[in-house]
Amino acid sequence: MIIIDGLQYVNWNRELFEKAKDAGVTAIHVTIAYWENTRETLANIGDWHRLFRKHHDLIVHARSADDVLAAKQSGRIGIVFGFQNCSPIEDDLRYVQVFHELGVRIMQLSYNNQSLLATGCYESRDSGITRFGKEVIREMNRVGMVIDMSHSAERSTLEAIELSQRPIAITHANPSFFHDALRNKSTTVLRALGESDGMLGLSLYPFHLRNGSDCTLDEFCAMAAETADIIGIDNLGIGSDLCLNWNYATLEWMRSGRWTAGADYGEGSADNKDWPRQPAWFASSADLHNIAQGLKKTGFDDEAVHKIMGQNWLRFFGTAFGPAQDT
Amino acid sequence: MIIIDGLQYVNWNRELFEKAKDAGVTAIHVTIAYWENTRETLANIGDWHRLFRKHHDLIVHARSADDVLAAKQSGRIGIVFGFQNCSPIEDDLRYVQVFHELGVRIMQLSYNNQSLLATGCYESRDSGITRFGKEVIREMNRVGMVIDMSHSAERSTLEAIELSQRPIAITHANPSFFHDALRNKSTTVLRALGESDGMLGLSLYPFHLRNGSDCTLDEFCAMAAETADIIGIDNLGIGSDLCLNWNYATLEWMRSGRWTAGADYGEGSADNKDWPRQPAWFASSADLHNIAQGLKKTGFDDEAVHKIMGQNWLRFFGTAFGPAQDT
Repeated sequence: MIIIDGLQYVNWNRELFEKAKDAGVTAIHVTIAYWENTRETLANIGDWHRLFRKHHDLIVHARSADDVLAAKQSGRIGIVFGFQNCSPIEDDLRYVQVFHELGVRIMQLSYNNQSLLATGCYESRDSGITRFGKEVIREMNRVGMVIDMSHSAERSTLEAIELSQRPIAITHANPSFFHDALRNKSTTVLRALGESDGMLGLSLYPFHLRNGSDCTLDEFCAMAAETADIIGIDNLGIGSDLCLNWNYATLEWMRSGRWTAGADYGEGSADNKDWPRQPAWFASSADLHNIAQGLKKTGFDDEAVHKIMGQNWLRFFGTAFGPAQDT
Repeated sequence: MIIIDGLQYVNWNRELFEKAKDAGVTAIHVTIAYWENTRETLANIGDWHRLFRKHHDLIVHARSADDVLAAKQSGRIGIVFGFQNCSPIEDDLRYVQVFHELGVRIMQLSYNNQSLLATGCYESRDSGITRFGKEVIREMNRVGMVIDMSHSAERSTLEAIELSQRPIAITHANPSFFHDALRNKSTTVLRALGESDGMLGLSLYPFHLRNGSDCTLDEFCAMAAETADIIGIDNLGIGSDLCLNWNYATLEWMRSGRWTAGADYGEGSADNKDWPRQPAWFASSADLHNIAQGLKKTGFDDEAVHKIMGQNWLRFFGTAFGPAQDT
C-alpha cells in the first residue's frame, strides 16, 4: 500500500525514521519553516541535506511523484519539503522559484496570523488574498508549488481556490462539522476544494478532533466517510499533523514566533498549554495502519482506503509539482 | 567549435545574448555575486530565472557539461553560475550545498580582500586558507563546486590547490611574467595548477595585459604559447573577464562593495578610474574568433586551438561539477 502523510512535524532522528520506514510509510510532507525568514529557511534546508546524507539508507528528498515511487522502490521514505507560512519568501516574488529549485513543493499562504499574502485562521477579520498574494499564487501556479491553506482564514481560502489556476491543498485540517475549531474547515470550503479537484488531508492533531485526545477511531472514520461524501473520494487523504519528540519551547516558537512577547496558546489554553496527548490509536506513523483498518470497518472498500491512505496524494503530487503546461 | 568563456561580467540584454549566440559561443561562466550576502544573492539568481524565461530561445541554465552540450544542440548558450566571492554563503557551511542545488558551480574563496576563507590578492599579508576555509573546500569538493582563486593571494592559492582533493580553477587571470599585476599569477602558481590538473582562463581585461588596452593580439597569443608550456595544453582556456554595458557605479560596487567609504580604484587609479578600453581585437564575444585565429597563427595546431577555446573547459566541467565519487 502507498502510504503518504500529508503533514508531519517531527524532531527526526534515526530511530524515528526507522519506525516510519518499518511502518511502510511511502512519503511524508515535512515542515521546513513556520516563521523563519529566507536565510533561516536555507539553514533548515541545509540541516535536511545533512539528514539525507546521514540516513541515506532510510530517507531521500522527493521532488516529484516519480521520486516518491523511486524512494519506495529503494526501500526509503520520500521526504517532501513544505512551508507552513510564506515567511521564507519574505517580500520577494523571485524566491518562489528559488525555493522550488531547492525542492520546496508546498507552501501555506499564511500561518494563523495575517501574512503578506493572506489572512490566518486566528485573525478576527479576513481581508482575503492581498495584491502580493495574487502575484505569489500566479508564480506558485507557474513553477508547480502547491498552495496550502491549512492555517488560513475562510475568505482567504475561498479566494485562493478561486484565484489559483491549479488545484490547491489543505494538507492538515478537519471539517468544522466534526469539531468546530478555528483551524477546521467549513462545508463551503470543503465543497469548493473538492469541486476544484483540490486535496484535504485529515488531521489527527487532538485540537482538531471531536473530544480531543479522547476521540475514538470510529468517530474519526465516520467523519472521513461524511467528508468523502462532501469533497469526493478522490480528494481526501491523511495529513496527520503528527508532532513528535519536541519540547515545549518548539511549541512556543510555533505559536508565538517573534510576533508577540506575550504567551499565545494557539488551540490550547493557559491551563492546557503543552503538546496535547495523541489519541491512543494514533501515536506514531505505525498507527496509520489503524486508520486504514478503521476506514475499512467504516465501510470504505479497498480501493477507497488505498486512495485515502496515499494514492490520492500521489496522484495530486503527480500533477501539482511540475511547471504549468502553458508557461 | 566549442567556445567557452571562463568568465564574463555583462549587463545582459537581448541584443547582447543574440550577439554572443551569433558569435557561436557555447557557454559562458557568469558572475552572480561580488559582495552580495545570502539573501541578495538569491535575488540575483531570481533575476537570472527571469532572464532564462524571457530569452528561452537564446540561453539556458547549464549545471553540467551535458547541459552545455544540450544547450549547443538546441542552439542556445549554456549559462554557468559562479560567485567571485564567498559572501553568498556568509558564515554557514550548509549554504555551499544549498547554492550548488541552485546551480552554482564555481566560487572564488576571496575577492581582492581577506574573506572568511582566504586572503585576497590586494592584501599586504596573506595568511592562507582559514579554518572555515578548509571546511568549505572539503564541502565544495564533496558537492562538486569548483574552487576559483582568480582574485586570491599567492599563499592562499597554493594552499587551496594543495588542500583541495579535486582540481581547482583560476577562471580569469594571466601570468605575472606577461604583466606583473597583483591579479596575475606567478609561474609557481601556474605550475602547481597544471600539475594538479587545474584550469587557467586567460584574461582579456586590459589591466591584466601587457601594455593594457594597447596590447596586441600577437603579444597575447605568444603569452598563451609560453603559458601552455608551463601549465600544459590541457589546462588552458579563456576567461575573458569581458565586462560590457555597465556604468561606473557598478565598477565602484565591484571595487568598494560596502567595505570602504572611500574610493578604491582597484587596478585603476584616480586618474584612470573608469572601465578600461578593451583592445581593438577583443571588444565582444564575437572577437573570441580573433583569439582562435591568433592562436593558430602563433603556432598552435587545430587540436590545441580547440582545446584552449573550449574543449578544456568542457572536459573540466565534466569532472568538476558532479558530486565526489566517494561520498
